[in-house]
Order: sequence, then structure tokens, then C-alpha cells
Amino acid sequence: MATTTSVKHLGEFTGEEVLLEGWVYNSRSSGKVGFLMLRDGTGIVQCVLSRADVGEELFAAFKELTQETSITVWGVVKEDSRAPGGYEIIAGGFTVHQLALDYPITPKEHGTAFLMDHRHLWLRSRRQHAIMLVRHEIIRATRDFLDDNDFILVDTPIITPNACEGTSTLFGLDYFGRQAYLTQSGQLYNEANARAHKRVYCFGPTFRAEKSKTRRHLTEFWMVEPEMAYCDLEGDMAWAEQLVAYIVSRVLETSGQQLEVLERDTGKLEQVKAPFPRLSYTEAVESLQAAGVDMEWGGDFGGGDETIISEQYDQPLIVHRFPAAIKAFYMKQDPDDQRLALGMDILAPEGYGEIVGGGQREEDLEVLMERLLAEGLSAKEYEWYLDLRRYGSVPCAGFGMGIERVVAWICGLPHVRETIAFPRLLNRLEP
Amino acid sequence: MATTTSVKHLGEFTGEEVLLEGWVYNSRSSGKVGFLMLRDGTGIVQCVLSRADVGEELFAAFKELTQETSITVWGVVKEDSRAPGGYEIIAGGFTVHQLALDYPITPKEHGTAFLMDHRHLWLRSRRQHAIMLVRHEIIRATRDFLDDNDFILVDTPIITPNACEGTSTLFGLDYFGRQAYLTQSGQLYNEANARAHKRVYCFGPTFRAEKSKTRRHLTEFWMVEPEMAYCDLEGDMAWAEQLVAYIVSRVLETSGQQLEVLERDTGKLEQVKAPFPRLSYTEAVESLQAAGVDMEWGGDFGGGDETIISEQYDQPLIVHRFPAAIKAFYMKQDPDDQRLALGMDILAPEGYGEIVGGGQREEDLEVLMERLLAEGLSAKEYEWYLDLRRYGSVPCAGFGMGIERVVAWICGLPHVRETIAFPRLLNRLEP
Repeated sequence: MATTTSVKHLGEFTGEEVLLEGWVYNSRSSGKVGFLMLRDGTGIVQCVLSRADVGEELFAAFKELTQETSITVWGVVKEDSRAPGGYEIIAGGFTVHQLALDYPITPKEHGTAFLMDHRHLWLRSRRQHAIMLVRHEIIRATRDFLDDNDFILVDTPIITPNACEGTSTLFGLDYFGRQAYLTQSGQLYNEANARAHKRVYCFGPTFRAEKSKTRRHLTEFWMVEPEMAYCDLEGDMAWAEQLVAYIVSRVLETSGQQLEVLERDTGKLEQVKAPFPRLSYTEAVESLQAAGVDMEWGGDFGGGDETIISEQYDQPLIVHRFPAAIKAFYMKQDPDDQRLALGMDILAPEGYGEIVGGGQREEDLEVLMERLLAEGLSAKEYEWYLDLRRYGSVPCAGFGMGIERVVAWICGLPHVRETIAFPRLLNRLEP
Repeated sequence: MATTTSVKHLGEFTGEEVLLEGWVYNSRSSGKVGFLMLRDGTGIVQCVLSRADVGEELFAAFKELTQETSITVWGVVKEDSRAPGGYEIIAGGFTVHQLALDYPITPKEHGTAFLMDHRHLWLRSRRQHAIMLVRHEIIRATRDFLDDNDFILVDTPIITPNACEGTSTLFGLDYFGRQAYLTQSGQLYNEANARAHKRVYCFGPTFRAEKSKTRRHLTEFWMVEPEMAYCDLEGDMAWAEQLVAYIVSRVLETSGQQLEVLERDTGKLEQVKAPFPRLSYTEAVESLQAAGVDMEWGGDFGGGDETIISEQYDQPLIVHRFPAAIKAFYMKQDPDDQRLALGMDILAPEGYGEIVGGGQREEDLEVLMERLLAEGLSAKEYEWYLDLRRYGSVPCAGFGMGIERVVAWICGLPHVRETIAFPRLLNRLEP
């Protein structure tokens, strides 16, 4: 009796008869032998059918198989070093569940709009399959790193009453007659949770109603946000670089096959080791000016600026201590220079831009209140947040890491739209 | 030089000098000795200060300490079997970061509304702290079980164009001029993903704009939804019960201390072992009728009905094969009885109600289309979903497990509002 298994586990069944359930990736036949590439979601394996073994009738049926037809195949597992996964199946027979007619995605080239419209099918292709596996591994590595370092997952709310950083890029919704918004960050809540659990993180979808079309932005994206009580900017940078380095090493360790499918230059990933080089904002501006960029101290970096700054390094680069005026009210001012805020960004190498942003939080009630009012925010709405400075205020720091940006970088993708199964973009809400 | 560590790790430093950063849980003193319960987010430890050791000035300062004052303490770790965590600190000194005045949550009793209004502080209390740790462990166990069984996390969208189960309980939002909704389930997308990866899951927030106030409903809650290609109702029930049993065993193994704080009767949890008893819907109705409940075949169970049915078992109970008329259009009809749909729910014991709902999906294009049109849905909006039946349709099944329901059951909580850090309810959007 054949054991039902999957392509991923064929190595455990060498010489034995197994049953595989999947879909036809492609098939071809000569007069006497048929070759079927069977895709089962865990991998692809070549199944070899001989007319003599399976009989005339089944061999004739084999010739009628079409791409993405669902099929169960049984046969003996044979080790074969020339085969892609190291194994092939000497098939004894098969049954068809449903014959797929005119599968829209053929081996020929398709345009991006067509593929995005058929995203629900495109996900089956080898390249998209590999990206989703790397994404899975990046997320698992992130959680393992945090869980193993005593971080507690405390989910923060998606529907929020506050418009933390202005309403212009927020999705609004009606909450039983009240105006509410979809979250852009769980940070304020994280700060409360860090006072209950020391180290915490939230990990969920965040939203940005940005009208711009760029290769780095989705309207709905996933972000992990660790937050640590009794932590300063130095500690914050250390946690962030260790997390990023750990993720890269885990992906290299587990996902070599996927990176190969993606034709990723893994040599560049192998160089990623903590600690990362550090550059102050002021130094970064000087380096841009030296490169001939027309940039004055005080402004924010654009995507192009980030590329120029980070191109000088093989490693992710930490840029720290930004002008306080361009940062959020809750960021702590640098005690050594009040014009600066104790923030930091990590820029991925190879022009992939910002993957991490964070910093130390203002812990002093008076200073925080002043900043909040200066931004035109209502102290009443932030009463609960101010309470965190009234009752056992401590140095506190954290950061957010955008998952899709990290996936794009590690997979070497030109656009974030392939980093998530069903991307949401300015002009795309389907499928 | 004292090592900075946390209460959780004191056992690694017996006899050594350590530095702990935290908050005053409470403190008292006699003439010569002070006792400080230090809370650092990872645990609570008693620190003993002698006036002779720390000097007059510091001992006087100690007497002024207030609840939730942030404080760093250093001293020697001493094993003490009578102490709550097995250790105490013979303190050498301390420094105060910020003195907390009039912390609102005192050891006296507070009303629920007051505590919910101070949720950002309430989370620090011993009981809430324990619940969040169990929640963390439940989520980690869920992910470990799925990841270790070849399930791939494929995140499904939160903003969706379709009103899958009617618009009455959906939160709507404006998506750049188009009507969109917050997701109630990732299932339809999961079905596409399962055809790409065989076994997949999504795990994210889901939303229900329900105007009812019950102890079992939140408007925003987290759900894990596994979906398996080449899987039928039997396989679906087996995966679900194994997952639930695994979660319970992991919590028992790792979270004994927390369950003790919550005064949970762990004997009842220890009985939870797969396989779970199974009851068909028809049998469940008969059992309700026998119990004197006025219920006819064909209706849905209410919360009270679920309690009566499940009370007869020490284990979670699987109820399966519901009337097709009360189930969604995508649920497969029972080939043995067309009035029935191949769905299943798992009811937690002790009256905690439904924790899992799922079933086998209709794989036939014609039947699915018929059901869809009969429900008044637009075939055009579901074209992509119908494609899954056109191109390699297979038996497919899955389920959703509501995290907050599972946390309520395992922690033994009367109301789901304590199962998440910042609950969203009909009348609660803050803090």
C-alpha cells in the first residue's frame, strides 16, 4: 500500500511506493515514455511513465494531460542526482481529479497587469512560490528571534481613534457613528505594553492611504514593532541590527533552493553581519553633498538619497540622530544637541532603502506635553499615553521593520508588489 | 560589577550580584528592614533592604517609594524556597527614575469600566500580565504546530472588495473612491494559496461590526485559518483537534505559573486529548430536544444551546454536518444527504462555546456557481474564486480558530474583553 506523502519528503521513502497529490506543471512524451513534472505545493518532481508499465489506455490519457490539471500519481521513489530535487518517481499510474482547460498563465511572457489580475493563479508559478516561502521564513525567523529573547507578543489594535501622524495618509472608517482610523503603527500601545512586560512586540498589518505609486509602497503592509522598556538609542540599534542579521542568516540557512530559483546573489547576503556601520544624519548629509546632491541640513531623505548613501556600504547602514523638526513628537531629543532627535533608520544595501525606523521615546512628561501641543495635537486624546510618563516613566525605545521591504531586499525583487500574496496598491483592490 | 538581568533569569545568578530594572509592585518596612516587591515585566521578586547595609539616607528614601515608581535595584541573588519565584534579592542599593504619585489602580476593588478606561495601566497587574503571557504562548504554539506540519503562512488581505457574507456586519471604508470592507475571513484567498502551497494558513485580525454586546464578541479579533488542498471533512476535523490539543498541552507545559495566578483548574485542561468526541448536527438537535430545549431541525445553535450540548462532555466536542441552508455558499454538500453541508464546529468544554468553525469546500464549478447565484451574489465579483475550480480543482478544506475564544477558555475568563490588550467593543474604542 503506497504511503501518501509530499515532494518535500520524498527522501524519506527511497525505493518505496508513494502516492503524490498535485497538479501538472508540464508534461511531454515520446512514443513509449512520458515525463510529467508534478507540482504539489511543497516542490516539483519528475514522474516517469512507461507505456509498458501503465498500459495503452492510461498512456493515451497521459498524453491528454494539460497544465494545472489536478492529479494523483503513485509510483516508486528513485534517487537520481541529476533530478532537480534529487529524486524522481517511476510511476505506476495516476488518476485525474479535474482537467484544466486553457490555463491562462503559459510558459510564454505575460505583462505585469495580466499577471496581477491573475494573482490567484500566478502564485502557483515557481518564482512566486519561492518568494512566498522566503517570506514565510523571514516572518518565522523574526518571531523566533524575538520570542527567544524574552519579547512578548502583545497585539495592538488595528482600529484606532487617534490620528497619530496627521490624517492625510489614513484610511478612515465609521465605527458605530464615530470617526476611526486604520492603524499606521502600534507603537504608542507598545509603550504601555513594554511597561507591563519589559520587552514586547506587535506584528500586524498597517495601512497608509498614500496616493503615490512607487516600487516601495503598498497601502496595506505588515510590520513588526519591538519595544523595550529600560532601553536607549544604543540598545535600540543593537536589537535592530541583531534581528536583521539573524533573519538574513536564517534565510541563507533554510532557503537556498528558493534563492536559487530567484537567482539571488547570495554572496551579498553572506556579508551581512552585526554590528552594522553607523552614520549620523549630519554625516549622511555631508556625504550626499560631497556626492554632488543639492541637499541642505534639516530636510528628509528621498528614496534616491537613501540609495546614494547606502551604496557606499556592503552592509545595511544605520543612520541616526535626525533633525527633531522632521520627526514625531514622541521622539526623545538628544541631550547633547537639542536640534537632534534620538532616532535611527536602517537602510538595506543594494538600493533597497529603509527597512527599519525607530528610536528612543521622550520619557519626561513636561517635555512630551510641550512637543505634543506644539504639533497641534490634543492632550486630552493622549491622556492615556501621557499616563505612561506619570506612573513609572522609564527610558524606552523601539523600532518598526517593514516585512515587504525586507522580503524585496532578501529576494532581490525590483518591486514590492510581488512580496505579498494579494497586494493592495493605489489602483489595485483585486483579486 | 553587577550583571543586568531580569527576574525570569535570576536562577542563573545565585550568589552573584545583579542589577534589576523595574517598578515598585509594593513595599513595606519595619524599623530596620525594608521589603520591596519589584516587578520588572518578566516576574516579581522580593528585595530585602537592611538599614545597616544601605545607610540611613537610602533607607529613608526607601520609605517614600510609591506603587509603580520606576526603580533600579542591585543586590545579591539568594535562593529561598519560601519566596514566590524561589529567589530573593539582598539589596545593596537602588536608584529611582521617576516617582509615581497616586497610581490609579490600587489593591482595592475597582469597577470594570474604570479598569477598562485604565487598560494601559491595568495590563501591569498580576492577573492581566498572566493572561497576556498565556495568549503569547497560545499564539506561539499555534504557529509552531502549523509550521512544523508544513503549513506555509501566506498573509491574506485585510482590505477586501467583496462582501462575502452580507454587508450587515462589515466595517466599510473608502478606498480611493471605491467601497471596500475590512475582512471577516481570509478563507477565499486561502483556497487560492492552498493550490500553490498545499497547506497554508493566514493569521491576522478580522472584524465584525456587530451591534450586540455579549461576553463572547469583540469587533476586532484575531483568527488563524489553516487551509489544506487534497483534504476532506474527516481530515479537516483531524487537523483541527490536533491543533487544539497541542495548544492545550503546550500551555500546560510552559505556563503553569500563569494558570496558577489565574486560579485555573488545570485538571480540566489535562483531560483534553485528541481525538475529540463527534456529534452530528442532527444528533445535537435531538440531544437538545431531549434536554427540553424548544429547537427544530434546521435552525442555528445559540450560545446557550452550545453550552447545553457541550456540557455533557469533558473534552472539546466536534459538531458536524449542518443544514446546508444555514451555511455559506462555498461549503460542500454532503453527497450522502443533500440537505447537509460538510461543515464542523468545535465547542470548548465548560460552556466556552465555539472556538473553531470550518469544513470542506465545494470543488465543482457548476454546483458552486449555482449556490453563489442562489445567494444573490455576483458571479463577476467571484470570477477569480471560480477560477480555482476551473484550473485544477481539488478537494479542499480548512477552518478558522478564534484566538480570543481560546484564550478565554484556557485562562478560564468570564468575558473576552480581558483576552486582548486593547479590546474593541461596541462602546469601546479607547484607550
